[in-house]
Amino acid sequence: MESGKATAEAEIRALVDDLAEAIRAKDVGGVMSHHAADIVTFDLAPPLISATANATGLEAWFATWRDPLGYEVRDLNVTAGDDVAFCHSLNRLVGTSTDGEKADIWFRQTLCLHKIESKWRIAHQHESVPFYMDGSYRAAVDLEP
Amino acid sequence: MESGKATAEAEIRALVDDLAEAIRAKDVGGVMSHHAADIVTFDLAPPLISATANATGLEAWFATWRDPLGYEVRDLNVTAGDDVAFCHSLNRLVGTSTDGEKADIWFRQTLCLHKIESKWRIAHQHESVPFYMDGSYRAAVDLEP
Repeated sequence: MESGKATAEAEIRALVDDLAEAIRAKDVGGVMSHHAADIVTFDLAPPLISATANATGLEAWFATWRDPLGYEVRDLNVTAGDDVAFCHSLNRLVGTSTDGEKADIWFRQTLCLHKIESKWRIAHQHESVPFYMDGSYRAAVDLEP
Repeated sequence: MESGKATAEAEIRALVDDLAEAIRAKDVGGVMSHHAADIVTFDLAPPLISATANATGLEAWFATWRDPLGYEVRDLNVTAGDDVAFCHSLNRLVGTSTDGEKADIWFRQTLCLHKIESKWRIAHQHESVPFYMDGSYRAAVDLEP
């Protein structure tokens, strides 16, 4: 049991590494190979919820960035059962948009996974930054871990 | 196995109901009775990450609201294994702050749970609203599901 959990944790860490590599490479297929078909995402940008795997949206988003895209995963914490798991981390995205705007933002990521036909898939992804409750309702895109 | 999963799902739905009731009642102990001792939270407000159960913070937050506090959980989706589970929902908080400011906000909630000594506990909680990527970096507190 415990060694099964250790294996599951190693598999999920490998998945997170692979996902980061795919994002750096703007590899839509590589990213989506880890998504369950019915993935539900809570993304950095609206809407509140997206309830489908979306290659078009991902492709459009990658197209808004110049190469290369920087992507770092820090403080990854994994909890794995036999076929259900979750992990959370603080992720950094660094890039320059096609209109020349530089971005360097730390955000929170939670991945919830389900083992489907012996492969871990992301069933739910939640990414966010907090916001300032000082009346400004400004997204806290300037925080660092 | 399948009936075990059904039981786990029912237990987690009951936990979410109980948690909502505790929030409406501003019951710090009631909320925290569902938290793992080492809960990691990604909250609506900064910081990026909080890595401890925090009665003082919760108490201070409850104190910023007049009674009663409205709290609704919509579209709850639960995935449960034997001892690891996750769920996500769209939650609504309605209230009036002590300085008379009315709030009515929909946010996303992801709960990641771990069964510890035969009781489900929240090991990780992620709550957020998205933000507008139109250059304003304004938190999208005006969205509805």
